[in-house]
Amino acid sequence: MTKIKYILFAAMGAVMLAGGAAAQEPAAAEAVEAVVEAASTTPAPDTAFVFNTMLFLIMGMVVMFMAAGFCMLEAGLVRSKNAATICLKNITLYAIATVMVWLIGYNIIYGVEEGGYIGTLAMWAADDSAALETGYSASSDWFFQMVFVATAASIVSGTVAERVRLWPFFIFTAVLTGLIYPIQASWEWGGGWLDANYGFSDFAGSTLVHATGGWAALAGALALGPRRGKYGPNGQINTIRGSSLPLATLGVFILWLGWFGFNGGSQLALGSLDDAIAVSNIFVNTNMAAATGVITVVVLCTFLKRKIDLSMALNGAIGGLVSITAEPLTPAIWQAALIGSVGGGIIFVVTPLLENLRIDDVVGAIPAHLFCGMWGTIIVPFTNSDATYIGQAVGIGANAIFVFTTSLVLWILLKMIVGIRASADEEDKGLDESEIGAPAWPDFSEKPNPLQPAE
Amino acid sequence: MTKIKYILFAAMGAVMLAGGAAAQEPAAAEAVEAVVEAASTTPAPDTAFVFNTMLFLIMGMVVMFMAAGFCMLEAGLVRSKNAATICLKNITLYAIATVMVWLIGYNIIYGVEEGGYIGTLAMWAADDSAALETGYSASSDWFFQMVFVATAASIVSGTVAERVRLWPFFIFTAVLTGLIYPIQASWEWGGGWLDANYGFSDFAGSTLVHATGGWAALAGALALGPRRGKYGPNGQINTIRGSSLPLATLGVFILWLGWFGFNGGSQLALGSLDDAIAVSNIFVNTNMAAATGVITVVVLCTFLKRKIDLSMALNGAIGGLVSITAEPLTPAIWQAALIGSVGGGIIFVVTPLLENLRIDDVVGAIPAHLFCGMWGTIIVPFTNSDATYIGQAVGIGANAIFVFTTSLVLWILLKMIVGIRASADEEDKGLDESEIGAPAWPDFSEKPNPLQPAE
Amino acid sequence: MTKIKYILFAAMGAVMLAGGAAAQEPAAAEAVEAVVEAASTTPAPDTAFVFNTMLFLIMGMVVMFMAAGFCMLEAGLVRSKNAATICLKNITLYAIATVMVWLIGYNIIYGVEEGGYIGTLAMWAADDSAALETGYSASSDWFFQMVFVATAASIVSGTVAERVRLWPFFIFTAVLTGLIYPIQASWEWGGGWLDANYGFSDFAGSTLVHATGGWAALAGALALGPRRGKYGPNGQINTIRGSSLPLATLGVFILWLGWFGFNGGSQLALGSLDDAIAVSNIFVNTNMAAATGVITVVVLCTFLKRKIDLSMALNGAIGGLVSITAEPLTPAIWQAALIGSVGGGIIFVVTPLLENLRIDDVVGAIPAHLFCGMWGTIIVPFTNSDATYIGQAVGIGANAIFVFTTSLVLWILLKMIVGIRASADEEDKGLDESEIGAPAWPDFSEKPNPLQPAE
Repeated sequence: MTKIKYILFAAMGAVMLAGGAAAQEPAAAEAVEAVVEAASTTPAPDTAFVFNTMLFLIMGMVVMFMAAGFCMLEAGLVRSKNAATICLKNITLYAIATVMVWLIGYNIIYGVEEGGYIGTLAMWAADDSAALETGYSASSDWFFQMVFVATAASIVSGTVAERVRLWPFFIFTAVLTGLIYPIQASWEWGGGWLDANYGFSDFAGSTLVHATGGWAALAGALALGPRRGKYGPNGQINTIRGSSLPLATLGVFILWLGWFGFNGGSQLALGSLDDAIAVSNIFVNTNMAAATGVITVVVLCTFLKRKIDLSMALNGAIGGLVSITAEPLTPAIWQAALIGSVGGGIIFVVTPLLENLRIDDVVGAIPAHLFCGMWGTIIVPFTNSDATYIGQAVGIGANAIFVFTTSLVLWILLKMIVGIRASADEEDKGLDESEIGAPAWPDFSEKPNPLQPAE
Repeated sequence: MTKIKYILFAAMGAVMLAGGAAAQEPAAAEAVEAVVEAASTTPAPDTAFVFNTMLFLIMGMVVMFMAAGFCMLEAGLVRSKNAATICLKNITLYAIATVMVWLIGYNIIYGVEEGGYIGTLAMWAADDSAALETGYSASSDWFFQMVFVATAASIVSGTVAERVRLWPFFIFTAVLTGLIYPIQASWEWGGGWLDANYGFSDFAGSTLVHATGGWAALAGALALGPRRGKYGPNGQINTIRGSSLPLATLGVFILWLGWFGFNGGSQLALGSLDDAIAVSNIFVNTNMAAATGVITVVVLCTFLKRKIDLSMALNGAIGGLVSITAEPLTPAIWQAALIGSVGGGIIFVVTPLLENLRIDDVVGAIPAHLFCGMWGTIIVPFTNSDATYIGQAVGIGANAIFVFTTSLVLWILLKMIVGIRASADEEDKGLDESEIGAPAWPDFSEKPNPLQPAE
Repeated sequence: MTKIKYILFAAMGAVMLAGGAAAQEPAAAEAVEAVVEAASTTPAPDTAFVFNTMLFLIMGMVVMFMAAGFCMLEAGLVRSKNAATICLKNITLYAIATVMVWLIGYNIIYGVEEGGYIGTLAMWAADDSAALETGYSASSDWFFQMVFVATAASIVSGTVAERVRLWPFFIFTAVLTGLIYPIQASWEWGGGWLDANYGFSDFAGSTLVHATGGWAALAGALALGPRRGKYGPNGQINTIRGSSLPLATLGVFILWLGWFGFNGGSQLALGSLDDAIAVSNIFVNTNMAAATGVITVVVLCTFLKRKIDLSMALNGAIGGLVSITAEPLTPAIWQAALIGSVGGGIIFVVTPLLENLRIDDVVGAIPAHLFCGMWGTIIVPFTNSDATYIGQAVGIGANAIFVFTTSLVLWILLKMIVGIRASADEEDKGLDESEIGAPAWPDFSEKPNPLQPAE
């Protein structure tokens, strides 16, 4: 029953009371007042429908633009001889995600039975037959969910850069966006077993999106091995510098912008006072966590490294953002600041740790998306009493086992069947020559960009 | 009569019935229910007004940002010695479009009589005297239309780059945005003869915006001739590489983002369930066509060229987007995928074709905007039964004859009167030196960027 | 009392009248009609609440993105050896502004008593206890105000580039965003003495934001002195070229986009016809002033300098935008065009003037933000009869004295206590080496970028 109808019936009732006994007019007025009071924080369903749909579309647009953010971040952090290849990878992976989420991904996520493990393999088509009851347009929701899937694929792209061949990466992307991501997302967002049995809570996807991308990236890094020259023969670790820190910075600003959509849109509704207030609080917390992520890295670098590593500071912003993504709504501002700050600390600690483990993560995506993703997820019960630490741990573990295992198996299969790594010669010359056939920055003579042993 | 009034009168009527005969209460309730049911999918006119206006403003903002997208795409695809000039061209052409659409353009488009050929030459001023009846704010509509005109001018800029002098280009832009575009747009969007007599259908402007830009660009390319060194003495075709593929990629991501506004905003309303659903479907189709445009080029390159040409893949996205622009609403998703895919194919086929015809289109704007624009327009009747193939052909033909002829005459007049092309010496040194007096990337020594014969 | 309640009470009254005397039905109908007529241009308070909150959030998002615009503009206008440092500065200053506005800034601005001089030093926390009466969510307003403060800090960053050390700059930023900006903003936007006693009018902050940034930047430039090599021993002025004009251009396009949010969002409401119309008119005027700013510089350069200085044309856009910021609503379009055009003229005249005064403003922020800011503010009474030239002059003067004095004292204190300037050797090698420890563009061999005497 729609709200307007409700008000009118109440008014009718009140008026009839009033008609029956003129002396009871004040009582009637009170009755109306109570009804109106209750209704006045909820716009009519048709209006709410438009608000909700707008939320998905506008926030989805800025999340879509995160694909450009990842592309600039990665193009800026690889050597110029691989920059065109990373650009092609990033625009194509978004295209592949679009098609795969349409063909099978969406129905795997949302076609799952309550408490179930996987949805249906049907192709998605917009169904607005009960639009007003649903509360938003089917296509707007599809669009919003699709850009999330693309985000997970973008994360993988950076870690495996400078050595992975294009087509094996595209095939991996198709399976990740069509099957791996959707299956594990269905467990929670589709109402599957994690949601039904464990009360797992992951508001906008610290685990479901970011750790998923992170595990897939880690599996890829392990299957591929490090770039040539990254690690010297005697345990020496070399720094390989990115070709354009300004482009990398632009990328992070775009991601920061996009994250308002990512977290804000995940409220999934804007058609009431409560929803509008929630989205606003999410904006404030999201922004605050990113800020303290940056500041933490800047302060730690100042005291412990004397110089301030720009790419680490940029990852500090991402780390803060990923950390607040599992629960951007319930934290007080100081809690959001704390959660983001720990995210920045994780970047500072985990980045060199991975280097020492000889895992070559070109853009630092694993500390930012995997480790901060797990941190953000496990800390949810600190601010949200509906979640439990055990439930969160189960969710993190299930995601880890499923995504890492399937990804590793897939990378290894691809390695055995088609090969995933460029030849040593191709890698030395740069993948732009072998994969694209054109340099990214042909006008500027490239210095050899000498390898530098890490401090 | 507004909706709320309607509801209240109905409620009053129902209440009076109820007052007259208590036994008829159920009938009264039913009457109210029927009224409410009818009204519940249309927010009140004042609410709809705000929604509609927001649509124009927010979608107009991202379309405005497409100017940055074209600028980055073009700055990345010219040699670094011409990159500052292209930047100045792109920001100035947007400024010129702003002024010309205000001075005369807007009233030429919308001041036309039904079935007519041209509007009035008056200066535009916002008129909100009947705002609620109009359904949106006059200024929001003006803003949305203006950024469309700027888009057409941006298209021309890329094709004629690296050899056209600044001021002749600015004069061309002023006439294009003040007269040529508005006159042909009035035939359809102003309710002129194409709309009235032929039922021509071009939802967001595959023909009216993109083919217009494409024809003006083609005329310019013909009037200017190819860049020095592009074609060798023995029919040899040389590849001239763009200076920054990462910036070009960023440009395409910005354009992709802007296209949600371009096509989504062209629904022209958001104040009802139907409109919100329509905008959502447009988002999905627009995104899908871009994706299949990219994938098609990537696949064709892989099989037919072995290496994947990044700039062609980028143009594949644009080709898909232009193709779906004439009708982003009626196609089913698979139809949008197909339409975009053919757009990608057109990029792959037409780009080398133009090269063989010795037409020098620096950024590939003619395949993307002109050829895909015509493709998208002619295929409208495939999904929209309100359009006919004959009506579409008439529209494409009228646009072609009018825009190409007037543009060519204008370019030739400019060539005769003021000269449109930089001297051979200026062209060799780069236009940044002669036009701007400063290099775009002064810190990086420029390699000669050797010309390479095409494969 | 909410609107719906009002309507229902009126309806009830009308119905009772009707019940009392059937003959009076027409009178009752008229009563309802009058009530509805009044209400039909104002959506219900709950709907208006969502609209207002959306305005803050969406417009705030694009204003937040202006941080990326400033970053790209500045990274493009410094030499490549300082580009990583400027990127770190810009992302960190935004983070600092976030934290400081939360800790003390916001309550200083809005906790001020009517006619007062400073608010309270309390930490801000969202209070939505009377949300419906406030008309928007507290957090959405905080977010919108916070990004304005960050903008002022971004302005300073560009002027003092290439020589200021990171930490002194960060400390200055913390005081600017936590105290200096908030105190002077409270005088007007918090309802303090400037607003209460002088009717000072500064719609979106030509003075309160842009001149504030400009004065702080000027104080910094004076305290720091010019870059090494900028001025020769015999009064010679050298041109120091920026490393990437395409990135600088991208930055200005992003700022232009962000300004729609900056000025449009400053309407502070979208929940009525009048507000929606106002925001639309602001969009048109803002865009027009930027356009005429660009065109004016292009025309002046053509006639007076023969070549068209791209960085000056870019600043022409910013100059036009700053000029219209004090009053983007009341001007007719031609007045907005005029105001923006004068802004462009100011850029053309003041930029070389400052050079001759041996004030080294790396990105030209002082002409654009300070001089155009004052111009935009003083001209408000030309189009807005609620403002007076005297009131405007008092506001400009108070802002100037307070911000310039406190900034200068702060810069000098920092100079005395910690030192604000990099050593000569560090400056010659570039701050990226001393502050960041990594070059911004390591792959491209850097030409010495020779100093060139100004024409």
